[in-house]
Amino acid sequence: MLVIMDARASDEDIQRVENRIHELGYKSHPIPGASRLAIGVTGNRGIEDRIYLEGLPGVQQVIPVTKPYKLASREIKPENSLVTVGDVVFGNGGVVMIAGPCAVENRDQTLRIADLMVSLGAHMLRGGAYKPRTSPYTFQGLGEPGLEILAEARERTGLPVVTEVVDPGLAPLVAQYADMLQIGTRNMQNFELLKEVGKLGKPVLMKRGMSATLDETLMSAEYLMSNGTHDVVVCERGVRTFASHARNTLDVSVIPALKQVSHLPIIVDPSHASGNRTSVIPLALAGVGAGADGLLVDVHDDPAHALVDGPQALLPEDFEQLMTLLENVTSALGRRFERRQVAIG
Amino acid sequence: MLVIMDARASDEDIQRVENRIHELGYKSHPIPGASRLAIGVTGNRGIEDRIYLEGLPGVQQVIPVTKPYKLASREIKPENSLVTVGDVVFGNGGVVMIAGPCAVENRDQTLRIADLMVSLGAHMLRGGAYKPRTSPYTFQGLGEPGLEILAEARERTGLPVVTEVVDPGLAPLVAQYADMLQIGTRNMQNFELLKEVGKLGKPVLMKRGMSATLDETLMSAEYLMSNGTHDVVVCERGVRTFASHARNTLDVSVIPALKQVSHLPIIVDPSHASGNRTSVIPLALAGVGAGADGLLVDVHDDPAHALVDGPQALLPEDFEQLMTLLENVTSALGRRFERRQVAIG
Amino acid sequence: MLVIMDARASDEDIQRVENRIHELGYKSHPIPGASRLAIGVTGNRGIEDRIYLEGLPGVQQVIPVTKPYKLASREIKPENSLVTVGDVVFGNGGVVMIAGPCAVENRDQTLRIADLMVSLGAHMLRGGAYKPRTSPYTFQGLGEPGLEILAEARERTGLPVVTEVVDPGLAPLVAQYADMLQIGTRNMQNFELLKEVGKLGKPVLMKRGMSATLDETLMSAEYLMSNGTHDVVVCERGVRTFASHARNTLDVSVIPALKQVSHLPIIVDPSHASGNRTSVIPLALAGVGAGADGLLVDVHDDPAHALVDGPQALLPEDFEQLMTLLENVTSALGRRFERRQVAIG
Amino acid sequence: MLVIMDARASDEDIQRVENRIHELGYKSHPIPGASRLAIGVTGNRGIEDRIYLEGLPGVQQVIPVTKPYKLASREIKPENSLVTVGDVVFGNGGVVMIAGPCAVENRDQTLRIADLMVSLGAHMLRGGAYKPRTSPYTFQGLGEPGLEILAEARERTGLPVVTEVVDPGLAPLVAQYADMLQIGTRNMQNFELLKEVGKLGKPVLMKRGMSATLDETLMSAEYLMSNGTHDVVVCERGVRTFASHARNTLDVSVIPALKQVSHLPIIVDPSHASGNRTSVIPLALAGVGAGADGLLVDVHDDPAHALVDGPQALLPEDFEQLMTLLENVTSALGRRFERRQVAIG
Repeated sequence: MLVIMDARASDEDIQRVENRIHELGYKSHPIPGASRLAIGVTGNRGIEDRIYLEGLPGVQQVIPVTKPYKLASREIKPENSLVTVGDVVFGNGGVVMIAGPCAVENRDQTLRIADLMVSLGAHMLRGGAYKPRTSPYTFQGLGEPGLEILAEARERTGLPVVTEVVDPGLAPLVAQYADMLQIGTRNMQNFELLKEVGKLGKPVLMKRGMSATLDETLMSAEYLMSNGTHDVVVCERGVRTFASHARNTLDVSVIPALKQVSHLPIIVDPSHASGNRTSVIPLALAGVGAGADGLLVDVHDDPAHALVDGPQALLPEDFEQLMTLLENVTSALGRRFERRQVAIG
Repeated sequence: MLVIMDARASDEDIQRVENRIHELGYKSHPIPGASRLAIGVTGNRGIEDRIYLEGLPGVQQVIPVTKPYKLASREIKPENSLVTVGDVVFGNGGVVMIAGPCAVENRDQTLRIADLMVSLGAHMLRGGAYKPRTSPYTFQGLGEPGLEILAEARERTGLPVVTEVVDPGLAPLVAQYADMLQIGTRNMQNFELLKEVGKLGKPVLMKRGMSATLDETLMSAEYLMSNGTHDVVVCERGVRTFASHARNTLDVSVIPALKQVSHLPIIVDPSHASGNRTSVIPLALAGVGAGADGLLVDVHDDPAHALVDGPQALLPEDFEQLMTLLENVTSALGRRFERRQVAIG
Repeated sequence: MLVIMDARASDEDIQRVENRIHELGYKSHPIPGASRLAIGVTGNRGIEDRIYLEGLPGVQQVIPVTKPYKLASREIKPENSLVTVGDVVFGNGGVVMIAGPCAVENRDQTLRIADLMVSLGAHMLRGGAYKPRTSPYTFQGLGEPGLEILAEARERTGLPVVTEVVDPGLAPLVAQYADMLQIGTRNMQNFELLKEVGKLGKPVLMKRGMSATLDETLMSAEYLMSNGTHDVVVCERGVRTFASHARNTLDVSVIPALKQVSHLPIIVDPSHASGNRTSVIPLALAGVGAGADGLLVDVHDDPAHALVDGPQALLPEDFEQLMTLLENVTSALGRRFERRQVAIG
Repeated sequence: MLVIMDARASDEDIQRVENRIHELGYKSHPIPGASRLAIGVTGNRGIEDRIYLEGLPGVQQVIPVTKPYKLASREIKPENSLVTVGDVVFGNGGVVMIAGPCAVENRDQTLRIADLMVSLGAHMLRGGAYKPRTSPYTFQGLGEPGLEILAEARERTGLPVVTEVVDPGLAPLVAQYADMLQIGTRNMQNFELLKEVGKLGKPVLMKRGMSATLDETLMSAEYLMSNGTHDVVVCERGVRTFASHARNTLDVSVIPALKQVSHLPIIVDPSHASGNRTSVIPLALAGVGAGADGLLVDVHDDPAHALVDGPQALLPEDFEQLMTLLENVTSALGRRFERRQVAIG
């Protein structure tokens, strides 16, 4: 930690700050500058709160040096984490394709799309049984029957399933059905949910909050990890900005930035970022160009009658086009990507 | 709803859109312009999802006309809502002062500050027993023992108590102790929590999310209201922007904007917005100038040893200064504001 | 400056950084921490570019300690600057009211509104002769004839006049007519314009850019000041955020933040911030509550026929109401505010 | 244009709005809804100001339907524009590589780097002779001698040169030396500069402003085009958001969005977006993945001694790696990309 004193700070102010540092059990290292004093602080553990130095007279700014996350940090674990879900691996240089409908609407729709996904080579199946919706008056998901449909789709296709958890009390139930648990954007700082999901020890797909900084994102991963799971995949899905030409602004720069400070895999959701089918393939390719470890994509074979987010769903033929482009691009980049081998009996 | 067709849309595209509108049971009203056609849609209920018109060929944009909230809307209820908590009323033109420590740290600290608050004329007591913290390694609140301390503080001072709920499963427990339940910023779109808290029927203080639009904020109020409580007070506490001179950017413009479209009261939290004691009084006065129905302020008599957010807490003497300024300013504005009469036996 | 080394930095990395610091003629102060080394740098002048320490291997972050502005800094000049325009003073604890039409549309309109302004007690007259418009197809201002009308309005009313300069080449011309030169939001980082306007030595009203940080804002003031004028008044007029309920988000928190680090006066423009007449008075009062040294307000007596920004202009009766509220509120806050004495022959 | 009336609007309010529409010479088309009236407006030209309908009583919102730009719109010109600079073409499906130092520092540095660029296959040379710097105390560029150096570099290498114009008065001078004129981010809404540069009729590289919407960006292109040049290339270089892990947030979603509404080419500047060498290649590939027509990249062979932005400059070996990756990726995407043939005598 570095304490920057005001140019007008008195000797007494400086002494008070040093006393406080020592009271906390830390060491102080004064660095006299031309116009002001800076005081280095060592011995702190880097994970505490702001320790009331900025409240003292004469203090201009307190600058933290150590990052607040540990388990998620590349300093603790320099090599990339591999997150395994069934036979799928995130973080090994390949691109994992998770695809499926935004919501589980009924058995027929989900099985039909799951069959399509496996036949086109997707690696995992997505689908929401519990949908966090902005409006209380819109479809909120099928609940447990939706989970049963997802489990049936997995039996049928062999695709591991990821689905969202929205309530700490229901986390164990969802974990019985799903191979990977999803934390939604709006719940990235629902810490009670993170604690419960973390305790289950299953792989987690955690979406970045709509205005979460990189540090906050990794602190939420830290909640999951410190509670028991070490298999966390982060998902960038667009952030809130002034720009109105897309539903959210896909922040591809977070991908190299995260990889520099963390060992966790990160994937991209171009569907929710854009909200618009025609932008999904360009944003998917942008994500892979920036180094994403995978993609999470909405696909629907009848988007006009989808209950949720139809306009952003790729049609099966769009999805096939995306898969072909990915085969070409990953090969050009020297990265792994193979369509899943169909193994339906 | 208004559907804007592309200038290059074909007759067939237009027919397809009209068919879709009729399929949905709505009426279409074509409005021919110089370069393109717009189609007015009537008969929809205004609360549904995007109904897959923007997915159709030739459609440039779909513009919703009706707001998605109903119960929170001033169109349904033109006069201001009065929200009553004990003997305190929000929304009657007065300024309600809610003050106290950020967190309940221990019995002595909370009772001491509660006594101070009542002696200086605050109207309600705030204090967190469950603290949603960015880091899993920092103080997370006392839990139920904290609720007991708050209840004791209320007995002692007569001040109604507001405290945060972070877990749907714990909502009934918190409701046994608190007079008003708080939904925190990070949980504004934790819809499961909103449903459970709404069902309890108690008054709710709902903080605006860090990047929530006005519509989203009112949709979260709608979750609470459609589940059972009608006593919702919104709280502006700063939003996420590029600006780094304050912890968040207090958005005073949301106050007149909300009052135009909704009947709900809105208050301001200058402490969490600024993160810095010296800005709290200016931001509090800004909020009242913009028309806020109340203030939520952190106060601590020993901020150097506060477990949470000490640097933003007003000292008792700062709080007294704020109360005096409020007496003067509300009188200048023709608004009600009286310090609470001390009634300690 | 503080250089934070990566936890994995080698001795060689550290040596390279220290060599670079010494090559630049600065002193290095190593501060060993538990997990990493930080190196304090002293002897730098605080105004240079990033000096290529962050480009070196093993460097995690370089944190500047000294602010890049000097003349605008309160450290150089602890007491508030008083900026005098004719008989009007900014920065003495009072609230200066600058009012008038957004644009000079014609002689009659401007003189008529100027007469109104002086009769209602405004202190200065605003009006644009050169209008920076988003669209090349809309009214761009009258140019020099507009300046002549403003000069005539000043003769007639005694009100000092502020008007915008948009082109470095025209700055001397505008300075012949105006008492104070305005730099518009979109030109806050038009450095060539700042240099030319600064050289004229006249008082300047500099609007904050739509996404300018506080440091950038003060650096633009520094351009003006280092080129010759010391009379700079900053104007907050709303910033770009995700929020869509107002044209821009008025950032009242910048007022106390600026006053902490700079001696310059700062005023607020509630008209351009909101874009909407009904929010102007609430935002004006918010600005004064937060400590603004003045207001810049659009007024029009026939907004339906205004060529620019009619919907945000206060009507004369609204303006009278605002002036009365300001008399009351400034008195409640112990601040100076008197309507200008009418001195029309 | 669509006028949404308040649910509580009176018949008189509605009549007043219709009268105003007719007074403006437009036609009104009332669309009665369940709770409110909407009024379609036709006959307007789509390029005017807000025409004071939102200022009338009972009006809730005015929604523009027609985009304010014409020349930049794909509706006017459905096919992609090809912008030709020397023998380089933007917009034909290929990827144009513009590379070179951020600033022209001296003759030796610029010629040396230009030789490198041509030998590695870049298509155009970049380099700033006039640098808009945030601080008045840092290097502001060599001015005309810098232009002479750039012209010499072009003679020597055959690479067309793009360089920035910062002052309307100097635009003709810069145009004598440069093949393409650059408008910088901070000047995107310096309308006087746009007018002067537009009049010169030369190709222009216009950087998007740091918080410019897509409409504003295209309106600035419209300024250039309506004044005389039709050869405008837009450049995305990152926008201002809350995120601090990169200097700016590269907005790749603007690429497909712009292409949908405009025929202009758009390229990406990953160097200024990231501010950090290690992110430049990932962001460059993201831009190409999203469909960018080219890249603008800082390269320096001695970044430790660069006068401007050294930490973001690619080293020659990084640049070679990027060129190889681009060869592979463009081929995978079916897009054109060939290194420029070296033609040094």
